[in-house]
Amino acid sequence: MTALHTKDVIIIGAGTAGLAALKQVQELTDNYLLINDGPYGTTCARVGCMPSKLLIEAANAFHRRYQFDEFGIENADSLSVNLPKVLERVRHVRDYFVSSTLRVFSGIEDKVITGRARLTGKRTISVNDQLFSAEKIIVATGSRPIIPDKWQSISNDKLLTTDTLFEQRDLKSHIAVIGLGAIGIEMAQALARLGVKVTAFTDSALLAGLTDEEVSDKLKYSLESEFTIHTKTQADLEELDSGVRVTAGDIEVNVDQVLVAIGRQPNLDNMGLDKLDIALDDKGMPDIDPNTAQVADIPVFVAGDASANAMLLHEVADEGRIAGHNVFTDNIEAYQRRTPLAIVFSEPNTALVGSRLSELDTDKMVIGKASFDDQGRARAGLRNYGVMHVYLDKKSGRLLGAEMSCPGAEHMAHTLALAISQDLCVKEVLAMPIYHPVLEEGMRSALRDGLKQTDLEQSFDLARCDAFNSEALD
Amino acid sequence: MTALHTKDVIIIGAGTAGLAALKQVQELTDNYLLINDGPYGTTCARVGCMPSKLLIEAANAFHRRYQFDEFGIENADSLSVNLPKVLERVRHVRDYFVSSTLRVFSGIEDKVITGRARLTGKRTISVNDQLFSAEKIIVATGSRPIIPDKWQSISNDKLLTTDTLFEQRDLKSHIAVIGLGAIGIEMAQALARLGVKVTAFTDSALLAGLTDEEVSDKLKYSLESEFTIHTKTQADLEELDSGVRVTAGDIEVNVDQVLVAIGRQPNLDNMGLDKLDIALDDKGMPDIDPNTAQVADIPVFVAGDASANAMLLHEVADEGRIAGHNVFTDNIEAYQRRTPLAIVFSEPNTALVGSRLSELDTDKMVIGKASFDDQGRARAGLRNYGVMHVYLDKKSGRLLGAEMSCPGAEHMAHTLALAISQDLCVKEVLAMPIYHPVLEEGMRSALRDGLKQTDLEQSFDLARCDAFNSEALD
Repeated sequence: MTALHTKDVIIIGAGTAGLAALKQVQELTDNYLLINDGPYGTTCARVGCMPSKLLIEAANAFHRRYQFDEFGIENADSLSVNLPKVLERVRHVRDYFVSSTLRVFSGIEDKVITGRARLTGKRTISVNDQLFSAEKIIVATGSRPIIPDKWQSISNDKLLTTDTLFEQRDLKSHIAVIGLGAIGIEMAQALARLGVKVTAFTDSALLAGLTDEEVSDKLKYSLESEFTIHTKTQADLEELDSGVRVTAGDIEVNVDQVLVAIGRQPNLDNMGLDKLDIALDDKGMPDIDPNTAQVADIPVFVAGDASANAMLLHEVADEGRIAGHNVFTDNIEAYQRRTPLAIVFSEPNTALVGSRLSELDTDKMVIGKASFDDQGRARAGLRNYGVMHVYLDKKSGRLLGAEMSCPGAEHMAHTLALAISQDLCVKEVLAMPIYHPVLEEGMRSALRDGLKQTDLEQSFDLARCDAFNSEALD
Repeated sequence: MTALHTKDVIIIGAGTAGLAALKQVQELTDNYLLINDGPYGTTCARVGCMPSKLLIEAANAFHRRYQFDEFGIENADSLSVNLPKVLERVRHVRDYFVSSTLRVFSGIEDKVITGRARLTGKRTISVNDQLFSAEKIIVATGSRPIIPDKWQSISNDKLLTTDTLFEQRDLKSHIAVIGLGAIGIEMAQALARLGVKVTAFTDSALLAGLTDEEVSDKLKYSLESEFTIHTKTQADLEELDSGVRVTAGDIEVNVDQVLVAIGRQPNLDNMGLDKLDIALDDKGMPDIDPNTAQVADIPVFVAGDASANAMLLHEVADEGRIAGHNVFTDNIEAYQRRTPLAIVFSEPNTALVGSRLSELDTDKMVIGKASFDDQGRARAGLRNYGVMHVYLDKKSGRLLGAEMSCPGAEHMAHTLALAISQDLCVKEVLAMPIYHPVLEEGMRSALRDGLKQTDLEQSFDLARCDAFNSEALD
């Protein structure tokens, strides 16, 4: 070990959270250190949000051919997909996105260390046999896909995760997907649309993180026209010479490859948390305040996937900024976390905004429902399938949350998120203009259906002008 | 003339506004009369919003083939479009939409008269040689495409409007489009994408109703890769044996057909307005209060396209409801009109929300700008082209309006419309969650760019928790 170097702030991890923290830190000091282990570039850009969206875009473009005949476009049958080329583009554009996350390192090379850091105390770390101390330490070490121990021995050309999926030069004919949360749903549908036979398994009854059974069932029914889904079943894997055998209850199916998408675990193990003299829970996690990013009452902050909060880019970036801000304040500041928002980029899109149904007291709320099966704009575009449920406080009409699987959900979820973040009543939302013909008219139907069930007086969407001098008719 | 029949309310016109009024009227009386001239079904469903969207959907689906190669989809060249089939589907689904607007007539056949009504006084009308009187009259006679007198003689297989375009069994090779407002832009692009050679003319410098030159120029540049555009030029037409000659300044071009899309005029001429003893302007229009729909101080209400306000379905429906409500109140009630919202379903989408740039005092506002040319999600989907401008009050940061031509504008315009209708400051909007990767991140960039230019303190998007007991570090 070499001599101790003293820094104001050390950031461990150069992903989304670490880089968001870095931006805050750089505003106040040059005496910082950024340490990164493993490949540079964020989880999002390398193996998460971006390559998955690239695969989905190609898959959806190809899948659209099934509507061509009805539109009056001929010879759709002659289209074919070149999987190696699809995957090559995914990597090519992915690399572009990664490179844009790397620009931040230009000019700060002397403050960046590549290596595996470990906490050796509340203000000290070791990396590559060097010791550093810092006033504050930010841990933003990210996460990795969960692979159960018993599956670790399966060769990694047969057992894929999102770390390896996008590196494939081609895809085999039959792939099992284990886990139907956001990643599982997105990749299962994309692979199926690209011509892979997909058999999917989840131990959950509901899909895509939904808690509203009707919405989940609607999504499931749609997806089942594209690939096979087994819910409420625990899958087990056995490596074969030629592939993998998946067993789940009475089901046994041999596939070429398996994509394991059962979640991600924070990279906090072997980080030296046991050196901090703080309590750890049974998963080895310390107490991290989600509003401050601080660990217990010590000068260590954990942000991003490492904190095991919602592993969603926009929340992870917030955590990084909160941590980067709080390392410079004597009074640690707490921030209100944003309105919850989760989107699954399936077709139809799936989204959850605000409170989930499972979190609400059903006695005090009403559910406004709208079907998109005959929604005008969706029908014009041959995308008329789906449902939206909005949850309103029965007494006040306040918008509490929504779950939906419908076309354009990724957009309407944002409008609803703004409404919830502003604590709006359904009547206030309905006073906004809704153009025609748009998918948002379906959202309006759900809101109106909810309004009818509340205790509020029903009336025009439009408010009377207070200032108007009304005059009697002649 | 037969004897006088007395009604509580007479509604003239069974389009969107008339039917919205009807719904209100039916809640309070059975003694009403609905009179309709010309084809049943709304302008929107018959010849407007819906058939245009159907044509656009087919056109966009076919146009997408240019991205197939980059996605890794092969043989896009073998796709072809069958125009008669495209048009047949447009009519088929259009008829479905029209039929759904006709359900309202079921059971009220005895209250509906087909014929041309004329006002004979403030409370009397004539139709089919019958006279009726009513306590209140609602005029919702709609609008029709403007065709200048000098072009009226051109045969209507050569001079098309939206009344006739969708009735075509096939389309000719070269079509001129006159006028590049919403309808002109939408149809010009759709026709071009379906393989028709399109040459477009507008006397305006800006397209699609935009008032922000940068946004319009961006749209124009994009459209010019698909068809020829001549701006700031007055086109004239001359019928030829084989088609039409279009002359505009130095330009002379022979085409097979012309689509005239220079606007719509209210159907108030020959309605008997001169019998009402009220002032008419030089266009023959009476004074109609947009907040009450009332004509001057008489018991006549004009709603919908006939009022010559924004001829947009959602506004027209509001006017119908306002009129339908006000025919039953002793004190005419004024309603706040909704936040302005206009969308053009071009690719990229074009939208205007709130105040237009041309309506704002540029000394007191700032323009937040974002380009979509390298926006992550748009790039993943090969739709990365466009720009969004948001207009903020410089002092307060209040969101005043926005003009944009970018992917997903039709959705983001709704989120911004909610923000404007709630009179939100840019910081309040930025406190909402924005998922990743979504087009809304481009909207956030525009809002953040605007915020930087305001007089507001810049800070986190996230608000500090008021209730938090901050504790000093150890």
